[in-house]
Amino acid sequence: MAVGQCDFPTMHPVKGIKLGTCNAGIKQTQRDDILVIAMAEGGSCAAVFTQNAFCAAPVLIAREHLTLEPRWLLVNSGNANAGTGKQGLQDAFASCAALASEVDGIAQQVLPFSTGVIGEPLPVAKLTAALPAAVANLAETHWDRAARAIMTTDTFAKGVSMVVEIGGESVTITGISKGAGMIQPNMATMLGFIATDAVIEQSLLQRCLSVAVEKSFNRISVDGDTSTNDACVLLASGYSDAPEVLADTPEYMAFAEAVSAVCKRLAELIIRDGEGATKLIRIVVEQAQSAAEAVQVAKTIAHSPLVKTAFFASDPNWGRILAAVGRAGVEDMELERVEIYLGTVCIVENGGRSPGYTEQDGQRVMGQEEITVTVRLGRGLVREEVLTCDFSYDYVKINAEYRT
Amino acid sequence: MAVGQCDFPTMHPVKGIKLGTCNAGIKQTQRDDILVIAMAEGGSCAAVFTQNAFCAAPVLIAREHLTLEPRWLLVNSGNANAGTGKQGLQDAFASCAALASEVDGIAQQVLPFSTGVIGEPLPVAKLTAALPAAVANLAETHWDRAARAIMTTDTFAKGVSMVVEIGGESVTITGISKGAGMIQPNMATMLGFIATDAVIEQSLLQRCLSVAVEKSFNRISVDGDTSTNDACVLLASGYSDAPEVLADTPEYMAFAEAVSAVCKRLAELIIRDGEGATKLIRIVVEQAQSAAEAVQVAKTIAHSPLVKTAFFASDPNWGRILAAVGRAGVEDMELERVEIYLGTVCIVENGGRSPGYTEQDGQRVMGQEEITVTVRLGRGLVREEVLTCDFSYDYVKINAEYRT
Repeated sequence: MAVGQCDFPTMHPVKGIKLGTCNAGIKQTQRDDILVIAMAEGGSCAAVFTQNAFCAAPVLIAREHLTLEPRWLLVNSGNANAGTGKQGLQDAFASCAALASEVDGIAQQVLPFSTGVIGEPLPVAKLTAALPAAVANLAETHWDRAARAIMTTDTFAKGVSMVVEIGGESVTITGISKGAGMIQPNMATMLGFIATDAVIEQSLLQRCLSVAVEKSFNRISVDGDTSTNDACVLLASGYSDAPEVLADTPEYMAFAEAVSAVCKRLAELIIRDGEGATKLIRIVVEQAQSAAEAVQVAKTIAHSPLVKTAFFASDPNWGRILAAVGRAGVEDMELERVEIYLGTVCIVENGGRSPGYTEQDGQRVMGQEEITVTVRLGRGLVREEVLTCDFSYDYVKINAEYRT
Repeated sequence: MAVGQCDFPTMHPVKGIKLGTCNAGIKQTQRDDILVIAMAEGGSCAAVFTQNAFCAAPVLIAREHLTLEPRWLLVNSGNANAGTGKQGLQDAFASCAALASEVDGIAQQVLPFSTGVIGEPLPVAKLTAALPAAVANLAETHWDRAARAIMTTDTFAKGVSMVVEIGGESVTITGISKGAGMIQPNMATMLGFIATDAVIEQSLLQRCLSVAVEKSFNRISVDGDTSTNDACVLLASGYSDAPEVLADTPEYMAFAEAVSAVCKRLAELIIRDGEGATKLIRIVVEQAQSAAEAVQVAKTIAHSPLVKTAFFASDPNWGRILAAVGRAGVEDMELERVEIYLGTVCIVENGGRSPGYTEQDGQRVMGQEEITVTVRLGRGLVREEVLTCDFSYDYVKINAEYRT
């Protein structure tokens, strides 16, 4: 149920980064469910993880291993290895060790990632038995297979790829993501893996990723639920001929902007594949006093089931948007100063319905597949936006039948 | 789609309180949509209102009139008179004035209440034209008609009635409520009207209502949306033969307890009529450090669309409950200390699935129409509970088709 144009793009290979997949039969038996990403020696790795207090076992291990110059990522779909206690930690580490012995590396240089159902033990034996096949097909060209191997309730594979110029030389940035439900990432997304051949030092790479994630994956929501397994990783192999990207330079600005653009597109693709989604809703909050306030208002609208069902029905029931803004918890908000627009149609101003508003105008905007709601708070100068989707019968169907 | 036993009970009339209804054709043309409640001179009135920053016009007027010894309540369904700007205020006041002239009172002693669609002008002419009929049938016995007149998407009328003994004499407490969607009341519920013949001074009556509402209407949620029109009113006519209820006496305790019981039942009835609800879910959070923390965890679970769809499907997908607890924003929560129960079945302990848990045990609880989820945080001694319902196809249907 992709909303809009979501074809899988041409993926530029990233020198020094290889991907291999295989089918371990973890949940699905038909398609690949294991992904291994291998980075050549000397690269750097940045990552952000879920802020859910109950991190999954692989998140705890990956966070620990991140400081030890990781070279391999091991991802499985079909099982989240979350809510699995001490056994889960042992299983996640055992998977890392199994991959390490296949590639002649060390377990502490492997970052594990899992996505799927919560609370089931990870089938480590199946996973390790399948690893040799994944390692055997490691190749720089396997981004498409990789994107498919990490899918769960996703209906299409998500990828984006860019080439930018740094110091007169090409730098490639290519990434994949997955996710369609339990999506309100907090400091990370469900899963995103991005690689570049840029030459860049780890702490600068981490800063670049953190900034990009804040304005992309942390600005989307399908259902307001933050997963226990969210993670986004940025690998830099350093294999490009471009000069090293250094802090506070025009080159850093160009690189950071490209990483942000990649993150934004990957995040948007997740919303376009939101469970049961039929529409993409962009909620823009302007004239806020702070970014926190703007995001708070935008997310309150984005999470309102009443607003989301109205979008599904193409019903310009703007009273629900007004009520959501009013309960967002912003101190001393004055209704008289607030303006609300559906697309370019002003619906609320001066504390009530805009005199020029007609139901037909509202209806015309609501009938579209991509809709922008703009809320002007009349309190300041800050602008933020959040992406979400509508709430349909299929959302209930998908989530009521998830485990059957 | 009532969940469980929701028959309209025998309503004990309250001496000094009369109710009249009529059909003004505001939205529905078939059934009464106007309710007038008249209290004899000398009674007292307490009320709580929505904390949505964008209060509806009638809420603003009612809040102002509350200090002026109100004697009449004027309620309409079918139109919320919210998001209607200055015109809305004029319309709400004009309605009060119209009723005042019918009953030979003054407009400032009328509290107006509206519920229905947001953003449409209140049809004042229709409303005032119908008032004489409502005033003509004022009677102490019309609680059933009153409960039906205030309904919107409600599928059944909601009432409760008790007689308690105060100082050897009978005191009656009878109340009605309405609401099925846009329900996460904050300091009030959609609409609740309760009356008693107790003799009690206004400030004590207000304290009694505020305490009762905090633990009843403020502990329920259908969809996490706080309405612009929430209000709950407690009228005390003083017509009982019982002695005056004074602060800090056993009589006050007995009275307050009865008011709390009435509020709790009225609140529960709203959840049992939650839009599309097929199940009543009681979420109990124990061993919290504070009430705020306990309510925060309980409401995070109650608002999770993933949790609510799992309940609809009778799927013991407890990982979703675990993830919701983890994202509730409680500082320094330790998964190892958290226990989660479905009914009496322990599903999570020591950071993972309980060793004795079986899918069949979870399934058995999930198949029931009324389910208690208990979360023990292992941090303190405070216990709170929140009532909610599941999330079904019909929720989407009702809200997608609300205005058609």
